[in-house]
Amino acid sequence: MRNILIIGAGRSASSLIRYLLDKSTVEKLQLVIADISLELAQKKTLNHPNATAIALDIFDQEQRSEAIQKASLVISMLPAHLHIEVAKGCVRFKKHLVTASYISDQMQELDEAAKANSLIFMNEIGLDPGIDHMSAMKVIDEIRDKGGKMLLFESFCGGLVAPESDNNLWNYKFTWAPRNVVLAGQGGSAKFLQEGTYKYIPYCNLFRRTEFLEVAGYGKFEAYPNRDSLKYKSVYGLDEVLTLYRGTIRRVGFSKAWNMFVQLGMTDDSYVMEDSENMNYRQYVNSFLPYHATDSVEIKMRLLLKIDQDDIMWEKLEELDLFNTNKIVGLPNATPAQILEKILNDSWTLQAADKDMIVMYHKFGFELEGVKKQIDSKMVCIGDDQTYTAMAKTVGLPVAIASLLILNGKIKTYGVQLPIRKEVYEPILRELEDYGVHFKEEIMPYFGYKI
Amino acid sequence: MRNILIIGAGRSASSLIRYLLDKSTVEKLQLVIADISLELAQKKTLNHPNATAIALDIFDQEQRSEAIQKASLVISMLPAHLHIEVAKGCVRFKKHLVTASYISDQMQELDEAAKANSLIFMNEIGLDPGIDHMSAMKVIDEIRDKGGKMLLFESFCGGLVAPESDNNLWNYKFTWAPRNVVLAGQGGSAKFLQEGTYKYIPYCNLFRRTEFLEVAGYGKFEAYPNRDSLKYKSVYGLDEVLTLYRGTIRRVGFSKAWNMFVQLGMTDDSYVMEDSENMNYRQYVNSFLPYHATDSVEIKMRLLLKIDQDDIMWEKLEELDLFNTNKIVGLPNATPAQILEKILNDSWTLQAADKDMIVMYHKFGFELEGVKKQIDSKMVCIGDDQTYTAMAKTVGLPVAIASLLILNGKIKTYGVQLPIRKEVYEPILRELEDYGVHFKEEIMPYFGYKI
Repeated sequence: MRNILIIGAGRSASSLIRYLLDKSTVEKLQLVIADISLELAQKKTLNHPNATAIALDIFDQEQRSEAIQKASLVISMLPAHLHIEVAKGCVRFKKHLVTASYISDQMQELDEAAKANSLIFMNEIGLDPGIDHMSAMKVIDEIRDKGGKMLLFESFCGGLVAPESDNNLWNYKFTWAPRNVVLAGQGGSAKFLQEGTYKYIPYCNLFRRTEFLEVAGYGKFEAYPNRDSLKYKSVYGLDEVLTLYRGTIRRVGFSKAWNMFVQLGMTDDSYVMEDSENMNYRQYVNSFLPYHATDSVEIKMRLLLKIDQDDIMWEKLEELDLFNTNKIVGLPNATPAQILEKILNDSWTLQAADKDMIVMYHKFGFELEGVKKQIDSKMVCIGDDQTYTAMAKTVGLPVAIASLLILNGKIKTYGVQLPIRKEVYEPILRELEDYGVHFKEEIMPYFGYKI
Repeated sequence: MRNILIIGAGRSASSLIRYLLDKSTVEKLQLVIADISLELAQKKTLNHPNATAIALDIFDQEQRSEAIQKASLVISMLPAHLHIEVAKGCVRFKKHLVTASYISDQMQELDEAAKANSLIFMNEIGLDPGIDHMSAMKVIDEIRDKGGKMLLFESFCGGLVAPESDNNLWNYKFTWAPRNVVLAGQGGSAKFLQEGTYKYIPYCNLFRRTEFLEVAGYGKFEAYPNRDSLKYKSVYGLDEVLTLYRGTIRRVGFSKAWNMFVQLGMTDDSYVMEDSENMNYRQYVNSFLPYHATDSVEIKMRLLLKIDQDDIMWEKLEELDLFNTNKIVGLPNATPAQILEKILNDSWTLQAADKDMIVMYHKFGFELEGVKKQIDSKMVCIGDDQTYTAMAKTVGLPVAIASLLILNGKIKTYGVQLPIRKEVYEPILRELEDYGVHFKEEIMPYFGYKI
C-alpha cells in the first residue's frame, strides 16, 4: 500500500479525493485525510475503506511530523502561505509534495534540498495556475517542435456561473473566494506587452479596458487584464514574443458595471468605516456620495456615475438592493470592501441547484515556414453540483492525477517545479479529457494583436 | 548673547534667517547656521556679523552634540524624519526646539522628558501645519469665549503662482516640492465629515469632487479634499462639530485636468517602467494607451479621456509638450510619477522673475445666542522674489517669531506642542501682519455645508 496524506479537506479537495478513492483499490492507495476539523475530514472519506480521517493542527509540529512521516506522498490543499512548514517536513522525511499554489520564494529555496533527496515538489498544478500552464505549454511545444516561432500569447481564465444557473443582471455569482473577486486588480497597475510595446493600466481604468472573447456554444465573454501578464515570460520560453497578455474572464457588461464600485471607492480595503456595524446599506452607499440636504442617494449616485435612468447599469445596482434602509451591515470595524462583499453575497451566493462554470481561452500567434498563423484553444467545464463543482474538478483533478503519476514513477524530474514539462502535462491533459476538461483547438490566419 | 542654532539652510530658511538677523542686535542674538553644505550656510548668513556658518553632518553624533550644546535654542528645518535625533540632543543638553513639521510619534514620546526639563518643543509652526492652526484657533476660541457652539469648520490652503506670473493654461507652477504635488492624494481614500455624515472619496474620484472658493480681488479657486480632514478634530476641540473638511486649493480647472493623469495611471509611483531612460515623451504617453497599428497617440488619448478636439483640456495637455518624440525621459528605472514630474518641470518651473502665492481660507459655522452664523477668514500672501517667496515667508516667519518668544519667556507651556494656545498664536499672528500675512474675517449668515 502507498499512503497519501491530504492536508486540508475544504471545497477544492472534493474531486481530488474522489478521484484517488476511485483508483485506490487498483492502485493500492491508502488515503489519510487531515483537517483541523475532524468532522469535515470524515465527511470527505465518503466512508471508503481505503480512507482514514484525522484531526490535524498544522501549527502543531509533532502532529504534523507524525502525519508526514507515515505518508509516501503529501498533498497540501492548505492556503498558500501555510505550505512551507509542510514542505520542510517533506524534505526532512523525504516525501514527495503536491500543491496547487504559486511557488513562493520560500518554496523555491527548497529546490536544492528536494533534488538532493530525489524528491518531486510539484506546485501550481490546479486550474490557474495549473491547467493554464499545461494547456499553454502543450501548444507552444508543438509549435516549437515543428520549427515555429512564437509571436503572441494571450491567456484568459474565469470562474463563472453556468448558463443554466445564470439568472441575474450581472451574469455572475461567487463560485470561489468572494474576497478575491472584490479585491481583484488592486495593488498596482496592470502590465502587459502588445506588439512589442509595454502597456500599463491603473486600477481606476482596469475594468474599462476589456477585450471580447467568443466561445462557440457559450456566446460572448469579456476579459480584463491581470496584474502581471509577464510573470511566465521566461518560464514559457517567450522572451522574444511581441504580445503577452493574461486576463480574467467575465460575461460581457460585468466589468463596466463593476467599475461603478471602483469609482465610488467601495472596493477599498485599506481603511475601516466609521460605525460600520450599525450602518444600513443605503447609508453605506451615501458615504461615497456628496452631502446634500434634500437630494436623494439615487440622484446623487446617477449624477456621479453619469447613468441615465433607463440604463441597465442602474438596474444592476438596484438588483443588489443597495438602497435598502432595512438591511444593516452588521460588521464591526469593516472596510468598504468587506461591506461590499457582504452586500454582494446576498445576491451572488450560489443556490443549492446552481452550477458553476470554468472558461479558459488561449491565443497563440506564430510564424511557421514563413507563414503567420494563430491557434485558439478553448475549454469550458461545467460543475456537476455544489460539491463536484467545475472549480473543484479543475483544481483538484490535476493535483490528484499528478500525485498518482509521481507515485508510479512516471514523473521523473526532481526538485521544486511547475507543470510545464511534457512528461507532466501530456498524461495529465489526456486523462483530464475523461473528466470533461477538454481543450478545443482551432487554427486560423494570424491577425496580430487586436482589441 | 543668546545662541540660536538653525539646522538646514534650504529654501524655507531664508525669511526665517533674515527675520532673526534683523532682530539680532536689539535682541542680542547670535545665529549659527548649520548645513551639510557650508557654502549654502555661508550664503544664508548674508555676511551679517551676528551670524556664523558651520558645516554639519546631521548623522555625525559628535558634531551634532557639539552644535546643540552651544545653543540656547535649536531650530530644525531638516526634512521631518530627521528631527528626532536633534530632538533627543535637545533633551540631553536641555535646549528648546522649534520645527515646522508634523509631530511624529517619536517626537510625541519626548513630551514627558521635555516637560521634566522645562523645555518647549514647538512643532507644526510653519504654514500648513502652522498658520492654519493659529488662524483657525484664534476664531474658534473667540467664538467659544462668547459662548458660541461650533457647527462647521472647513479649512483650505494652497501654494500657487502669483497672478502676475500666472501665464499657463493650468494656472499653476511648482512653488514647493514637485514630487508632493504629483503624489498628492495617494495612499488611501480621503475622509471627512459633512453635516454629521462621514464621507469617503477614493483617489480616482478625488480630483472630480472639488469645491469652489472665492477670494475678493483674487477671483475663484477650487479645492480638493485632503486625505484625513479629521486629524485635528479633538486637538481643536471640535468633537461635536457636524462638518469638518480640509482641502488643497488650486485655480479652477486644475483638478479636472489633473484627473486625466490619474485616470491614465501617470501618477503611479509603485512600479518602474521598462526602459524608461530611452523612452521619449510620446512613448511614455502611449504606454498608458491601448495598442493600435495605425491610430495616433492623440486620438487614442482623446477617446480614452473622452475629450473633444476643441476642449481646453486638450490644449492643457499640448501645452506640456506631452506628445513630443524628440524629448527623451532620460531617467533610468523611473516610475510613471517620476517621469510625469520631469515632464511637468519643463513647463511648471518658476522663472527668475516669477512670484508665488499662498492662499488660505477657513469657514467657521457656529451657533451663538440661538442664531447660526458663519465667519469666513481668508489670507493671501504674495512672494517678494525667488528667495523671499510667499512659501518661505509663511513657513519661516512663524518659526522665527516663535523662537524669539520662547527665548524671551513669552511662551510658557512646556512639552511637545503645536501652536493652538492663545499665548502662542496671538503674538505670532499679530506680528505676521507686519509682514503681509493678514487674515480678513467676514461674518455672514450660516449656510451649512454647501457644495
